[in-house]
Amino acid sequence: MHLEVHVLKLSEGIEWAIHCCSLLAVLPAGSALPGAKLAEFFDVPRDYLAKHMQKLSNASIVASTRGPKGGYRLAKSPSEISLLHIVEAIDGKDPCFKCTEIRQQGPSALSAEHYKRPCGIARAMHQAESVWRRELAKVSLESLVLEAQVNVNPKQIQKSTEWLELTLGLSNINLSKD
Amino acid sequence: MHLEVHVLKLSEGIEWAIHCCSLLAVLPAGSALPGAKLAEFFDVPRDYLAKHMQKLSNASIVASTRGPKGGYRLAKSPSEISLLHIVEAIDGKDPCFKCTEIRQQGPSALSAEHYKRPCGIARAMHQAESVWRRELAKVSLESLVLEAQVNVNPKQIQKSTEWLELTLGLSNINLSKD
Repeated sequence: MHLEVHVLKLSEGIEWAIHCCSLLAVLPAGSALPGAKLAEFFDVPRDYLAKHMQKLSNASIVASTRGPKGGYRLAKSPSEISLLHIVEAIDGKDPCFKCTEIRQQGPSALSAEHYKRPCGIARAMHQAESVWRRELAKVSLESLVLEAQVNVNPKQIQKSTEWLELTLGLSNINLSKD
Repeated sequence: MHLEVHVLKLSEGIEWAIHCCSLLAVLPAGSALPGAKLAEFFDVPRDYLAKHMQKLSNASIVASTRGPKGGYRLAKSPSEISLLHIVEAIDGKDPCFKCTEIRQQGPSALSAEHYKRPCGIARAMHQAESVWRRELAKVSLESLVLEAQVNVNPKQIQKSTEWLELTLGLSNINLSKD
């Protein structure tokens, strides 16, 4: 019997993963950022971030290349990547509500073959979770980037631009809304 | 800086709490079940269940009385208790997505006064969470009990009835749909 029942058992690092994808979404075409530079930009521990980037890579959200100009880039268009993709890349697709079938325990329990239909409590919890997932699926990385172009402080956009130009050895990067 | 970022940080025991409330919802008027009997009915560890029952009590979802006929009962009508009430009783009402403000870190960061508006990523995650909570709020304990009366195996309803009659020293308990 499982004693630990996590309902929405999502792991750490979703915030980092979404921010990293948002930064990769605005890289100039053909460029990439090494993991160490992503960690530097967000001032987060490099080894720990690398684990999350590996998960994004496994889910084909980012791709990595080696070499002096290598690093991470998005593996598809920001319009094709949703918050749900990122959340599921980091935490998997298993239902968050873990039904441990306690209805099959104790003095009222029947033998296992009597429980073909899922428990109504689990179905209600899963229904709410599916609504949450659908909501996350509606939000594309593209929409987050467009929102940031409008709402992030222009001074921060400028400092990000300067850091990217220095890091990538490029000039004339434009992170503002066209 | 926080290194651990749980997005939906919900604790264990929601499943137990909902099942316990569902059982308390069908008790005959005026009766109550001690924690030890709830633990027996679901075959779960008594001390561990007691922690969850205390949280339900703190949230005024259940009430407990002492004495030979004492124990837990619902503190309000099943129609007034939602899955959201139970989830929040066990896990609190704090937002599940913990934004650690990594936008305020690293080389592009500005001083704190520049971040009056919440981060767009946090807003999108919180929006999805609010949809999930609204969905949980729609499901009453009453509706779960009605659903169970239709869908739980009649043999299990019969065994539950017998156990309750023995435990409460009552006869003619009717857990079936009227």
